[in-house]
Amino acid sequence: MKKISLLGATGSIGQQTLDVIKAHPGDLELVAMSFGDNIEFGRKIIMDFSPKIVSVRNKEACDTLKTEFTNGITFVYGEEGLVEVATYHEATILVNAVVGSVGLIPTLKAIEAKKTIAIANKETLVTAGHIVMDAAKKHGVSILPVDSEHSAIFQCLQGENDKNIEKIILTGSGGSFRDKRRHELVSVTVEQALNHPNWSMGAKITIDSATMMNKGLEVIEAHWLFELPYDQIDVVLHKESIIHSMVEFHDKSVIAQLGTPDMRVPIQYALSYPDRLMLPSTKSLNLWEVGTLHFSKIDFDRYRCLGLAYHAGKIGGTMPTVLNAANEVAVAAFLNGSISFLTIEAILEKSLEKHQSISNPSLDVIKEVDLEARAYVREQLLQ
Amino acid sequence: MKKISLLGATGSIGQQTLDVIKAHPGDLELVAMSFGDNIEFGRKIIMDFSPKIVSVRNKEACDTLKTEFTNGITFVYGEEGLVEVATYHEATILVNAVVGSVGLIPTLKAIEAKKTIAIANKETLVTAGHIVMDAAKKHGVSILPVDSEHSAIFQCLQGENDKNIEKIILTGSGGSFRDKRRHELVSVTVEQALNHPNWSMGAKITIDSATMMNKGLEVIEAHWLFELPYDQIDVVLHKESIIHSMVEFHDKSVIAQLGTPDMRVPIQYALSYPDRLMLPSTKSLNLWEVGTLHFSKIDFDRYRCLGLAYHAGKIGGTMPTVLNAANEVAVAAFLNGSISFLTIEAILEKSLEKHQSISNPSLDVIKEVDLEARAYVREQLLQ
Repeated sequence: MKKISLLGATGSIGQQTLDVIKAHPGDLELVAMSFGDNIEFGRKIIMDFSPKIVSVRNKEACDTLKTEFTNGITFVYGEEGLVEVATYHEATILVNAVVGSVGLIPTLKAIEAKKTIAIANKETLVTAGHIVMDAAKKHGVSILPVDSEHSAIFQCLQGENDKNIEKIILTGSGGSFRDKRRHELVSVTVEQALNHPNWSMGAKITIDSATMMNKGLEVIEAHWLFELPYDQIDVVLHKESIIHSMVEFHDKSVIAQLGTPDMRVPIQYALSYPDRLMLPSTKSLNLWEVGTLHFSKIDFDRYRCLGLAYHAGKIGGTMPTVLNAANEVAVAAFLNGSISFLTIEAILEKSLEKHQSISNPSLDVIKEVDLEARAYVREQLLQ
Repeated sequence: MKKISLLGATGSIGQQTLDVIKAHPGDLELVAMSFGDNIEFGRKIIMDFSPKIVSVRNKEACDTLKTEFTNGITFVYGEEGLVEVATYHEATILVNAVVGSVGLIPTLKAIEAKKTIAIANKETLVTAGHIVMDAAKKHGVSILPVDSEHSAIFQCLQGENDKNIEKIILTGSGGSFRDKRRHELVSVTVEQALNHPNWSMGAKITIDSATMMNKGLEVIEAHWLFELPYDQIDVVLHKESIIHSMVEFHDKSVIAQLGTPDMRVPIQYALSYPDRLMLPSTKSLNLWEVGTLHFSKIDFDRYRCLGLAYHAGKIGGTMPTVLNAANEVAVAAFLNGSISFLTIEAILEKSLEKHQSISNPSLDVIKEVDLEARAYVREQLLQ
């Protein structure tokens, strides 16, 4: 029985993690969880899974839930609450599925507490990959990817010697606007951008798919997770999202992981690793039903955000923090209608240009740079 | 340094095995080899690789070579010579790349001598899979596949638990006539059949590709190599031969092995396993260059030989021996112009129908049934 702590239970990844746990009552148990503002849904999860400890965003919600559940569940809140959930003594594995930089400190504390980390929180590795991976090595902790692309690569690397890696190849669908040319992007709407062809995901990540910033952040994550330089990380456009990613070895043999688009597969793999669990409700891949798989080369002029991510990743230090922070504010501005789609990349370009990267930054420096970058973008938005 | 014994050095697989050995003088060494009637080419290989022992088909060629090479090379011949080469004391791995049932006894003797077996000889597993796999288990010997499809599956299974296999999926290009409908096959010529779209191989195997008997024999081999029942072995048409085969696991995750069509990759993998060696002269796979991969369902009415192979495999016993023997004679008859393309499957159908399978056959029974089946087909050809 694996005992699981889950940060971000009401989000998209959180819910699918709960699906997987529910399907395997003999193998997996939810013992600790956090959620944000969706109290109603959180309450339902508590009733369904009876975790031992629950963290919510603020004291008010915490107090309300305390009066509702009198069956010994511990309720905590805020950033400290997240850390309590992440390091809960019974849990052996932490699923970090919160969105944003709030996931970083709980992950580091969980690593110190020697929990296995199943990581779905991009910001943790993008902004502080050097700190997280060093801590994981120091404490002998595994960092298991939950993203479908990184899980694919992780699966392809099983039984292989890392020294034989020629390169890893992330696949990207190209997002909602993959069939549009650059000049057609000028006037696209939020509604169009939110209509992802293959994956059903949150709003932020769906926009990031359309700009391919999502793939860019994945490239930076892959750099840290698999300890590879950027010139050994490739991206190929593959609009069907059937091949989730690949590894080429020195002998030119390529191992790929495929499947129908269903996040429960990589979530399950992180939870059951190195074993696999049955997923009866996931659809089998029949390639003869799919019929055709398409691949094309990335046009970095078309997908400028991806190029910016490579650029920020190669410079390293605090540059990926600026990329991530500026992108969050810009995407929020696009989602609320303040800016156009192409302005996202223009803002990122400007933010990276302005920033002088600080190498090997501490958590405090990362936090400071993050705030500065956000403030800079907000200032730009007012102009 | 791995010391290699190679049966069938002048054949297609044999030559490519030598290519791989030549490219890795620090890792691989040819110490023993056999070849058949191509003395001229055999002589060149002896000069290039200086093996310690060489077996040829007959005494005459053996005597000739003995007078030519006076530098301590041992020359042997015939079936006994093959066994001497296969069990040569210095070799740790036997690459069995001979064509036909002549490969069986040397393989069994090499297993008894605790050599690792890299198997490219289909007949060995098709006709005597139960004997070979039992012997391998008894002597703690690994049977490593050299066929690109089986090597792909073997690579996909690294780091996995066999109990999690849902099914294996062999890909087949459909051969030279993949774009022809059944009624168009009536009048196809030998020249057309020999024009395989993806792989450059020997004549017999190219015809077997066109009938998909090759895939059928691979299904039977896979049954033995991976210890799976036939309902866990699927075949999908994939005309580009880029995905060499796949494994689906219980969690619906599919692992595939891909590459440009180059037999040196699976040969190298068998020789270097569990490591991988560089293959600088093999072309990298760029999926964006390939552009599109196609998949379609097998039509067992179109490819009757494949259905016959499943049928023979499921019945088991001596039925696959009849399938293989009848196919060899029928394909030879097609190649020399005696019968039409579609007569191959008609002959196979008749041969299987006539035969009463003997379960768990000994080597003697297999040999006897093999000869009977050949005699029966020859008799049919005279009518």
